[in-house]
Amino acid sequence: MTQDPRLPPVGFIGLGIMGQHMAGHLLDAGYPLHVYNRTASRTAALVERGATAHDTPAGFACCEVVITMVGYPSDVEQVYLGAEGLLAHAKAGTTLIDMTTSSPELAARIAALGAENGIGCLDAPVSGGDVGARDAKLAIMVGGDVADFNRAMPLFQKMGAKIAHMGPAGAGQHTKMANQIAIASTVMGTCESLAYARAAGLDAAQVLEAIGTGAAGSFQLNVLGPKMLKGDFAPGFFVHHFVKDMSIALAEAERLKLDLPGLALARKLFDRLVEQGHDQDGTQGLFRLYGAST
Amino acid sequence: MTQDPRLPPVGFIGLGIMGQHMAGHLLDAGYPLHVYNRTASRTAALVERGATAHDTPAGFACCEVVITMVGYPSDVEQVYLGAEGLLAHAKAGTTLIDMTTSSPELAARIAALGAENGIGCLDAPVSGGDVGARDAKLAIMVGGDVADFNRAMPLFQKMGAKIAHMGPAGAGQHTKMANQIAIASTVMGTCESLAYARAAGLDAAQVLEAIGTGAAGSFQLNVLGPKMLKGDFAPGFFVHHFVKDMSIALAEAERLKLDLPGLALARKLFDRLVEQGHDQDGTQGLFRLYGAST
Repeated sequence: MTQDPRLPPVGFIGLGIMGQHMAGHLLDAGYPLHVYNRTASRTAALVERGATAHDTPAGFACCEVVITMVGYPSDVEQVYLGAEGLLAHAKAGTTLIDMTTSSPELAARIAALGAENGIGCLDAPVSGGDVGARDAKLAIMVGGDVADFNRAMPLFQKMGAKIAHMGPAGAGQHTKMANQIAIASTVMGTCESLAYARAAGLDAAQVLEAIGTGAAGSFQLNVLGPKMLKGDFAPGFFVHHFVKDMSIALAEAERLKLDLPGLALARKLFDRLVEQGHDQDGTQGLFRLYGAST
Repeated sequence: MTQDPRLPPVGFIGLGIMGQHMAGHLLDAGYPLHVYNRTASRTAALVERGATAHDTPAGFACCEVVITMVGYPSDVEQVYLGAEGLLAHAKAGTTLIDMTTSSPELAARIAALGAENGIGCLDAPVSGGDVGARDAKLAIMVGGDVADFNRAMPLFQKMGAKIAHMGPAGAGQHTKMANQIAIASTVMGTCESLAYARAAGLDAAQVLEAIGTGAAGSFQLNVLGPKMLKGDFAPGFFVHHFVKDMSIALAEAERLKLDLPGLALARKLFDRLVEQGHDQDGTQGLFRLYGAST
């Protein structure tokens, strides 16, 4: 891949399923790309295509922008706030973009610390899953300073199709939480609808077709419903990631003194699914609890 | 309205918001229409347009097809099984079509009794609400004998846009239950998502736009969500009807030994809404429980 010398060097930390695709799009666009991954072997494919691998996040001082796409808020905390972390080593003027789904409160804390040192920090979680990442069709929900958002826009546009500035630091994460909260109850309703259809002796696939375009219709019903009926529980979005997101949302809701019984119930059901050993399923695996055969 | 003498006389019982529109379409299509309503004054508009009013369901013996669209399973029971009811007075060869959302078990019972006397009985509940009824765009989910279904098809086509034969007697009602079960949790997830967005200080309308086209998207979120945010709780579909439907679904689920915790929770929340006096709201009124101002 030819690097475009007019483009600023970009760092990318976290090369999981999503991160691999997202970083690859930046490389394809000609950005000089620097990569780091805790499991170092995952950098190989991108290095082969021209990226430079580093063995610590501290090595990204050359990058004007660093994007992170790691697993859990604890990983975000380590990558940003650790002794070898980004905030301790980034130069003033750098933009740091966390695209992990993580805690809004942590995002605000990181942004405040960054601001003290002239480092712009955005929280920019995504939705659209592995397919959205692969096809550069992600929805990207961004919190933070508008000037930083505008500066990052050309990068976002290489990874996503729907990019929105949602408010100050943390607002991107809050928006993603609103997204996950809607999904939590809707996937439960989808499971219950299809479990009922089957128990009542109906052709559940025909039921999906009959009800999917009306008031019962949803992405969960129309896209994950058919997978449930086929017993196809392969991950588009992992159960264990969704459980993480629900935990963050419930903690934030408690902080906001907001009672979300549907979310709490969905979390309880997904916990049960994890206890049964299905944390590596896609979220449609919830249908197992309703008697789905695999 | 000119009546078409080649078309068979049709009876219509139950002229509520939905029934008025549905019966009107049959009249518009030229069917000689006979109507009955418990509150007799509701027949006036259709009589003015050429329908014949009767003062008891027993008077429909002239009709080859009788359609019912009443309120509760208890009403269905009375209209079909009462001393002045349809089954006691209909001639052999008549087709009776119940379009009320009612109990699958009752539908099967009525069909079995009808069969003993050569009377074909279909259960054909609809979705699409008052707008779907007005625009003849209802989804119609039909259970019963296929020959009866085929015979009724021309009538269904005057009222609906999506008509499906789902199986034997009761299958239409079961399909409608699957529809309502999916809605129950999805409307809850929509409320919780928007309540969270507001509590987190986001512009909830902007959140709807950001998340509505992805995995969180649903009819409930995209169509009822904006109404929730405006505090517009005017009924498209009444809370008290939805509570009825959830009661039927929960009773059927219990009979089928199926645990539907999302549905049970939604039912509890809607019960609370009714206790607060909001049974005449549209279902989006559930948002009141999450702190919505009116």
